[in-house]
Amino acid sequence: MILTQMIIQSWHLTVKRVSDLFFNLTEKEMMREVSPNRNRGIYLLGHLTASHNSMFPLLGFREPMFSELKNHFLINSDKLKEKPFTVAELLEKWMAVNDELKKHFNNLSTEDWLQKHTAISDEDFVKEPHRNRLNVVLSRTNHLSYHQGQLTLL
Amino acid sequence: MILTQMIIQSWHLTVKRVSDLFFNLTEKEMMREVSPNRNRGIYLLGHLTASHNSMFPLLGFREPMFSELKNHFLINSDKLKEKPFTVAELLEKWMAVNDELKKHFNNLSTEDWLQKHTAISDEDFVKEPHRNRLNVVLSRTNHLSYHQGQLTLL
Repeated sequence: MILTQMIIQSWHLTVKRVSDLFFNLTEKEMMREVSPNRNRGIYLLGHLTASHNSMFPLLGFREPMFSELKNHFLINSDKLKEKPFTVAELLEKWMAVNDELKKHFNNLSTEDWLQKHTAISDEDFVKEPHRNRLNVVLSRTNHLSYHQGQLTLL
Repeated sequence: MILTQMIIQSWHLTVKRVSDLFFNLTEKEMMREVSPNRNRGIYLLGHLTASHNSMFPLLGFREPMFSELKNHFLINSDKLKEKPFTVAELLEKWMAVNDELKKHFNNLSTEDWLQKHTAISDEDFVKEPHRNRLNVVLSRTNHLSYHQGQLTLL
């Protein structure tokens, strides 16, 4: 289905662009803030990895791959400077999470995509059928673009 | 068609969030750079207005509403500091362009949305049917989110 493909293609394209950004930044650049007193590159890498990692249960695929990321990069801000991960470790997790998502994405038909995600009840889904799995991908692509705009400032 | 609605809804939601950002920034904040030596808020307002203004001919709706924006905010960078527009004037144009786009959006069926945009030939469109009008909206929503991420730094 062409509309499903367009949304998935837009996701993959944005992941590719952000990955290229990450791999072209030096370790030193990744430790810089995108703007004075704002998040550092390394934090945004961890944040995006944790965000994509949280999509596994949300889309009903599997448990998160790296549950230790949530506390450091979703619950806590960059102000708690002690993050027990190096840029290289986070880059590895970033690639692993996106590769695993891609595998699951490739197995879904449009009908599967239009099923509800796991954070909405059957009752609410009847009233709001747009709150389906594909809409999670659509909104996470926007989320990714949002932080892409910040990462280009490094 | 639910997928069409999801993409259009995502556009409107992002336009609304960016509009709220613009209206909550002071004149002084809009004159700041999002990060040292990067674009100012006023430039991004002009840039996004010019970008959305260029969607009228691209989607086959009408001629651009404000042709004078292109030169200042698409062709030229913020480094040419002389922009003959105030924040208030640009905000007015921003609202006008998005309101006019919305009117045109509301008139289209999914079939209309899946027609080619005006920057692709009939020949190429046969081979690449995803290069349709709705895909323009999808990619411009990502473009908008990208700059939203920068505007939140002001």
